[in-house]
Amino acid sequence: MQQKKRKKEKRRDKHEETTNDFLADNNTDVNFESYPAATLRDGLRKSCHPTVPHMLNVHLVPHTHDDVGWLKTVDQYYYGGRNNIQHAGVQYILDSVVEQLLQNPERRFIYVETAFFYRWWRNQRPSMQTTVRQLVDQGRLEFVNGGWCMSDEATTHYSAVIDQMTLGLRFLNDTFGRCGRPRVAWHIDPFGHAREHASMFAQMGYDGFFFGRLDYQDRSHRMAKRNQELLWRASESLEPPHADLFTGILPNGYNPPDGFCWDQSCDDPPIMDDPDLEDYNVDDVVRRFKMIANAQAKVYKTQHLIMTMGSDFQYENANLWYKNLDKLIRYVNAQQANGSRLNVLYSTPSCYLQELHRANLTWALKTDDFFPYADNAHNFWTGYFSSRPALKRYERVSNGRLQTCNQLEVLGGPSSRKGPFGAGDSETLRKAMGVAQHHDAVSGTEKQHVANDYARMLAKGWQRCQVVVSNSLAALSGSSAGRVYCDNLNISACPLTEASKEFSVNVYNPLARPVVWPVRLPVNGSAYGVRDAGGAPLACQVSVVPVSEATRQVRKDRGHAVNELVFLVQAPPLGYSTYSVSRLQNGPPPASATPGPPAAIQNQFVRATFDPATGLLASLTNLETQQTINLTQNFYWYNASDGNSSVSDQPSGAYIFRPNSSTPFTISSSAKTQSIQTPELQEVRQRFGPWVSQVVRLHSNSKALELEWTVGPVPIEDSLGKEVFTRLDSSIRSSGIFYTDSNGREVLRRKKDFRPTWDLKQTEPIAGNYFPINSRAFIKDDKDQLTVVTDRSQGGSSIQDGSLEIMLHRRLLYDDVRGVGEPLNETSGVFPQGLVVRGRLLLSLAPPPLAADAHRPLAQENVLPPLLTFTKGGPPPGALLEVCFSGLQAALPPAVHLLSLSRWDDDSLLLRLEHQYQTQESKQHSGPVTVHLQKLFSTLEVVGVSEMNLSANQWLDEMKRLDWRPTTGGRPLKKPLGDPSVWEVTLTPMQIRTFVLRVARRR
Amino acid sequence: MQQKKRKKEKRRDKHEETTNDFLADNNTDVNFESYPAATLRDGLRKSCHPTVPHMLNVHLVPHTHDDVGWLKTVDQYYYGGRNNIQHAGVQYILDSVVEQLLQNPERRFIYVETAFFYRWWRNQRPSMQTTVRQLVDQGRLEFVNGGWCMSDEATTHYSAVIDQMTLGLRFLNDTFGRCGRPRVAWHIDPFGHAREHASMFAQMGYDGFFFGRLDYQDRSHRMAKRNQELLWRASESLEPPHADLFTGILPNGYNPPDGFCWDQSCDDPPIMDDPDLEDYNVDDVVRRFKMIANAQAKVYKTQHLIMTMGSDFQYENANLWYKNLDKLIRYVNAQQANGSRLNVLYSTPSCYLQELHRANLTWALKTDDFFPYADNAHNFWTGYFSSRPALKRYERVSNGRLQTCNQLEVLGGPSSRKGPFGAGDSETLRKAMGVAQHHDAVSGTEKQHVANDYARMLAKGWQRCQVVVSNSLAALSGSSAGRVYCDNLNISACPLTEASKEFSVNVYNPLARPVVWPVRLPVNGSAYGVRDAGGAPLACQVSVVPVSEATRQVRKDRGHAVNELVFLVQAPPLGYSTYSVSRLQNGPPPASATPGPPAAIQNQFVRATFDPATGLLASLTNLETQQTINLTQNFYWYNASDGNSSVSDQPSGAYIFRPNSSTPFTISSSAKTQSIQTPELQEVRQRFGPWVSQVVRLHSNSKALELEWTVGPVPIEDSLGKEVFTRLDSSIRSSGIFYTDSNGREVLRRKKDFRPTWDLKQTEPIAGNYFPINSRAFIKDDKDQLTVVTDRSQGGSSIQDGSLEIMLHRRLLYDDVRGVGEPLNETSGVFPQGLVVRGRLLLSLAPPPLAADAHRPLAQENVLPPLLTFTKGGPPPGALLEVCFSGLQAALPPAVHLLSLSRWDDDSLLLRLEHQYQTQESKQHSGPVTVHLQKLFSTLEVVGVSEMNLSANQWLDEMKRLDWRPTTGGRPLKKPLGDPSVWEVTLTPMQIRTFVLRVARRR
Repeated sequence: MQQKKRKKEKRRDKHEETTNDFLADNNTDVNFESYPAATLRDGLRKSCHPTVPHMLNVHLVPHTHDDVGWLKTVDQYYYGGRNNIQHAGVQYILDSVVEQLLQNPERRFIYVETAFFYRWWRNQRPSMQTTVRQLVDQGRLEFVNGGWCMSDEATTHYSAVIDQMTLGLRFLNDTFGRCGRPRVAWHIDPFGHAREHASMFAQMGYDGFFFGRLDYQDRSHRMAKRNQELLWRASESLEPPHADLFTGILPNGYNPPDGFCWDQSCDDPPIMDDPDLEDYNVDDVVRRFKMIANAQAKVYKTQHLIMTMGSDFQYENANLWYKNLDKLIRYVNAQQANGSRLNVLYSTPSCYLQELHRANLTWALKTDDFFPYADNAHNFWTGYFSSRPALKRYERVSNGRLQTCNQLEVLGGPSSRKGPFGAGDSETLRKAMGVAQHHDAVSGTEKQHVANDYARMLAKGWQRCQVVVSNSLAALSGSSAGRVYCDNLNISACPLTEASKEFSVNVYNPLARPVVWPVRLPVNGSAYGVRDAGGAPLACQVSVVPVSEATRQVRKDRGHAVNELVFLVQAPPLGYSTYSVSRLQNGPPPASATPGPPAAIQNQFVRATFDPATGLLASLTNLETQQTINLTQNFYWYNASDGNSSVSDQPSGAYIFRPNSSTPFTISSSAKTQSIQTPELQEVRQRFGPWVSQVVRLHSNSKALELEWTVGPVPIEDSLGKEVFTRLDSSIRSSGIFYTDSNGREVLRRKKDFRPTWDLKQTEPIAGNYFPINSRAFIKDDKDQLTVVTDRSQGGSSIQDGSLEIMLHRRLLYDDVRGVGEPLNETSGVFPQGLVVRGRLLLSLAPPPLAADAHRPLAQENVLPPLLTFTKGGPPPGALLEVCFSGLQAALPPAVHLLSLSRWDDDSLLLRLEHQYQTQESKQHSGPVTVHLQKLFSTLEVVGVSEMNLSANQWLDEMKRLDWRPTTGGRPLKKPLGDPSVWEVTLTPMQIRTFVLRVARRR
Repeated sequence: MQQKKRKKEKRRDKHEETTNDFLADNNTDVNFESYPAATLRDGLRKSCHPTVPHMLNVHLVPHTHDDVGWLKTVDQYYYGGRNNIQHAGVQYILDSVVEQLLQNPERRFIYVETAFFYRWWRNQRPSMQTTVRQLVDQGRLEFVNGGWCMSDEATTHYSAVIDQMTLGLRFLNDTFGRCGRPRVAWHIDPFGHAREHASMFAQMGYDGFFFGRLDYQDRSHRMAKRNQELLWRASESLEPPHADLFTGILPNGYNPPDGFCWDQSCDDPPIMDDPDLEDYNVDDVVRRFKMIANAQAKVYKTQHLIMTMGSDFQYENANLWYKNLDKLIRYVNAQQANGSRLNVLYSTPSCYLQELHRANLTWALKTDDFFPYADNAHNFWTGYFSSRPALKRYERVSNGRLQTCNQLEVLGGPSSRKGPFGAGDSETLRKAMGVAQHHDAVSGTEKQHVANDYARMLAKGWQRCQVVVSNSLAALSGSSAGRVYCDNLNISACPLTEASKEFSVNVYNPLARPVVWPVRLPVNGSAYGVRDAGGAPLACQVSVVPVSEATRQVRKDRGHAVNELVFLVQAPPLGYSTYSVSRLQNGPPPASATPGPPAAIQNQFVRATFDPATGLLASLTNLETQQTINLTQNFYWYNASDGNSSVSDQPSGAYIFRPNSSTPFTISSSAKTQSIQTPELQEVRQRFGPWVSQVVRLHSNSKALELEWTVGPVPIEDSLGKEVFTRLDSSIRSSGIFYTDSNGREVLRRKKDFRPTWDLKQTEPIAGNYFPINSRAFIKDDKDQLTVVTDRSQGGSSIQDGSLEIMLHRRLLYDDVRGVGEPLNETSGVFPQGLVVRGRLLLSLAPPPLAADAHRPLAQENVLPPLLTFTKGGPPPGALLEVCFSGLQAALPPAVHLLSLSRWDDDSLLLRLEHQYQTQESKQHSGPVTVHLQKLFSTLEVVGVSEMNLSANQWLDEMKRLDWRPTTGGRPLKKPLGDPSVWEVTLTPMQIRTFVLRVARRR
């Protein structure tokens, strides 16, 4: 019975009007030749052109690579504006490709970036939409990858990646149904490849994954051993084959072979086949093509070759490509009559993949990742791990805002979207976050004006979300009082709190467990009273705002607060609490800072000591576990290479990190310090110079030491580009080993000057050891683990034993010749002197077996912090108002993270539950854990459930992926889910389970 | 009865299957919206979009300008090869435009160059051909101009221009019938405009003519007076309105207005009309467009404006253009609802012209031409009049060969095309000549490799024609003996005559009157006997070949003759005679040269004296009229500007002539001379230096003095570009006046530092006085007229009274920044030292009233010289062979030139008869003259006749052109032809009459 109901759910979610029954009698105004639909039967795509056994089959894959912003903004790329920067107009590409596919049913095309396709689609007339649906149904137009963008892998957070994939794939699913589902992941351009991405792609149901860029040494080894196609086992926690992903390295990056680029942007000779004309070249073209195919066959395993026939923004005039490809196929295959064993065909990555699968071979197994990426000895693409730190932070903040907005859209019900504060939506921010994941967006490798545009879109999205949040909170609280959002609290600016004598603070907690959180509000009074939802007074502290030169410049007219009010708030799971604040006439004076460093700051959990001579950190103690390490921390910069070197002319730039020397400059060997020490707040304010300062901080409840750094404007008057980092030097005996996370989830072990799969020849002692840090990094020995939780993606390394360095800010004077064409200088109208960046590192010291218990929740709190909203005036009168609310019946178990909760359609929602611990990471939490879906929500009754793949574009029980055998070990078998019942879902370490739930409101 | 027969002829010639009856029920697989056919009713094109009265109507004309060779060869342009030189591929343009026209029936396109369209058309499938026919029938695709190319106007000969127009227009006629006939001439790019071109266009039935380039001063005057549209009365001899041509000057050359170029090659912003996206710009686009339209309206007369929306090789991806033009029209016209008086529409030049005609205004009359063209004060495009003199000569030679080939193809009957010497054709040469007329071909303004390609095509065409000629002569003579063509006689190289003891010479005369012609053959013997067709011996002369350094270098391995055999041959009209030559064992030694100048050389008609001190010419005497002038002649060079000047940075180049100084350098003030003086031959060989020499020559029958100059390799070791010219300085009192022909026909009066239609501000005293000379130039006073007949197009002027200078050769070291991107250096593999050029000037001295009687036939002989073919061995045995033949029953009257005689189809031929004198030019010949068509041919019976317009794409009696009123004088009325009968055609001065004759072979 239950089973039947689930099936019914599915039918509602999918779009059956685009199944094959419908296609069989398609009838259009364009005279298609009879053509089989792209059905799957026995795992085979009928739409694939047949190959010829015992011949070398070359799969030509016409494609375009359309950056969702880079040198131009997304909008400019879509329209073809600013063609003086780069000739590119996606609207025309799609116009043209569709037109050309209609000319010859043999032709194929793949499209990748749904952010663009979506724009195009909504501008088409119904007749064109029908035509395109047919092309998709027939496999002539195939979507690959299919996310909103082709995400960056080094600087993205898994949460945002899953969201953007879900957004793109859902559009394809809604629009094209089953035939629009991409079966291949396609990351042809990102600059290195994350294991977590591979894991996610596997869980999204992709049969395989292709990319273009990897380390040149790695590539050369793989070519020699024909290991350019391999099986990637992308998780240490998930049972194979759940995170196994067949992975192919494309032969020419993503470009066509030399001499065979027939785009309007290329100059290769077309096929000139009129013997009456002067430049007849068919024989020459055929000869050159054969040479290339034979050479390629030597470095791949099977009798099938793939050639990517396209590149950046190509196919704007698809006729040029197709006309010549048609001829190429005709003339090369015509040689078969003369005994040639070469067969060329139009193909797609999934058709190629199918042939590889049919070959029934075994494939080399890989368990690490593809970082860092170097395209030559002195060209390590490890700069972008840290480029544009402000944009990287803004993206991370926006992710938290989007999750919050999603949740409140669900919890507040229909009036969230249209309510007392007008019409709002989460889509605008969801799309903005979708494009921000692009590999030239959050990566920081776009032009300045494009970076500005990403920020603009996120800001606009947040504005639309604010309406949702306000409406939702109004519905939940019963109060339509105007809510104010203070987005500049990081620079101690909030006009409402600065000016008001009385105001209330709503604290919404998007986590599925209760949190205690320090709130820091800019105020101008010197004494305040704070009461909780029940009216009980809270301890609080007013202290003088630390204003450095840089802070003063950044705040400008945005904030004038002289003091900060600090207090700890509590908020229930998926819910809010409300606090009221009033300025007191009489009270103690604000805590002011004492000059000089204290011996130590500490609360009940942590103690940090300082060197009285330098003012720098000296040690860190975990008071609970009674462990102490020596720990100093300081700020440094590498002098960025300007390309003037006999070794290599590669300058450091947005992509590439190349210090001029491995020896950094120290900003200052000592800090000028001040400290505040009260029961609520302990902080040491360090000034390292006019452009570097830091606050070392402990709130009364903190288990981690907070380092709030402020860097900038980085001076460049000396004409030296600077790569500014902080380094922690500890007594931990790390032996060249350190650990970094992958996209904020599983952690990989790193070893200096070492790669797990080949004998590395290290050529850049610093840049060649940098790895992406998305949420945390750590070093450890038997006794101590020092974990640093970051607030954004950054690059980092451990160059010396016991040390961990994290790149904070980069200001460069040269372009690094990878296309962006601008030095990473980050000056703009708002910051003519250069960008000031502020961020936080959270240091956690623990015994290794207990470390994850601390850093996992710490990192989640950092990603999904509470949202504060403010209301003017005193506490709301009467008891009618809900000043406290939780969307959950109870907190989820500590191992379970509520990853996604968002509106799916009118009566259903998308839910993702995640086991946030790795296998064996935590004694306490690394076991399976079960959640009862019907006991989840306080205000929603779950009446139906469909479990989906990770990207929610397929029912999980219909997700059948091609199976691949590794060279070592047998064919992994998928085990059935061990759920106790359909409502009770069990999560194993690192597992994410995705559901569409049909719900009814309880009240 | 006769009338009826003529009508019947017409039906056969035209292609009635493409008339409107057919169109009415068109039925295709593309879903056209119902659309009126492009019929003419009451002179109106129904296919034109309606305009709005009392509004300013802007006619947007989408077009592409496709050079038939320039930076790339024709083939490269067609295919899109060598896109590294210039991105351009015509195949894709036509693919794309057709596709886009089908998307929206409102859209229009014009196509111009039939050389390209023809190539494309023959690669299309029948279904595409049907589609395109419909587009043409509906007026959505309109042909304008429609010749094989867009001919150059300064350096072309009318005969070749008429041929290439006929070739292109016939293809259009055969393919598309009536709706394919261009109604507008369209010379948007040529660098100045010839009156003769306008006259020809009028006679070809064009309703109007548009061009883009004219002198900047002229333009500015015309803008001020709104005289950019005018009536050009293009002949002084033809009765108006026969040579009247409405002429419009386009507003932006042929480009779109600033900011409105939406080709893939442009960077102007597209119309971004999605208000949700960031760069919405509709308001801005509309505002800018209105501004431009209003400004344009101020410099034109009517409420209609034309805007050329396209440029060089644009529309390769027509979607970009049309998508944005669709939006432009929509958004600009949408403003009419808000009171805007601006109306924008897709249009064509003929639709625009129709609106101008409807305006019923009067237009300024112009009777001179548009030469020279300057785009600024120091930028006179008068260099190309002389650029690439070898190519210019080769083109002229090839024209003669083509006419000869055409004639013999007709006279020899069907076996000409397929006979004992295999299959030949005249089409290859006709097409090669067609492209050679292009304004970057014979003009000399193409890149070197492209110039080579034109020459290659002409050579290939001549090879195919040689087969026709051999076959035809075999048919006419009865002898299939192998014929040898000696194409290098100009450098005294012919392996057959050099090596043979006995050979015969066939002399074919393509003129319609008998000629006597000096034959000069390279030989190695010292004595020869020559006999005519009847066996009678002829006087002949052997002399030593004059071999200069330059000649030696050019001949290389191609010829080794030490002597030349000279004798006079006679040939009948349109016929041949045969001469046999045998080497004699004993005979007089060859005439060898005597050092030093003779006092004079002379024959019975002419005497030329020489200055004993300098060796230069001293005087010229016409012995018949007993008139003598002082005449010296020498060689000079202007130092070409290298752009290093404070006045202007314009260098001299392929287009632009800009001497560094008005004072030329003299090559040498005296010549080293030798002379030969025999009864058959009088010549003075002058050596001016290692790279300039000359032979001054008189054959025994010459009425003109021949100056055979040899110039080159022009030295550039001194890093000075050189513009080499010869100057004749005479005692004629020319008062600043001189005369040059227009395209080899009517002569225009030139005056130094003067333009007939505006008050010239002369800024370049030399270059600004240069004019094109296609066949002749003269100076005169009351008594004497000195006419120089040239053998190719050259530039020239009269800077001083009594003098005439002619530019012979240009070797330049800088590009002149008009796009060709190469200095006019003319070095190649064959001539690594630079090009050596040889040519002839013929000087004729006569009283002005008699001058034309001499120079008209002289020039025709120069254009259509006899063709010599050679056969090895002794005279053919027996009387079976026709050693003499004339295709005419009798010579035509002296005033009548047989301009065209070529195969039309299996049983018809194309005939053009031309009155070759201007009104009042010759007392004897400037009257009407009548020819009887049935008494024309000796071997062909004329059984039907259709008189055609000049380009033979319309019956003359159906040629109805729009009539235009000049501002001064009334509306000219067309007078009926005054023919005595349908077979007797009367020609008035400068009239050309064109007939398609149906013929039967007499034997």
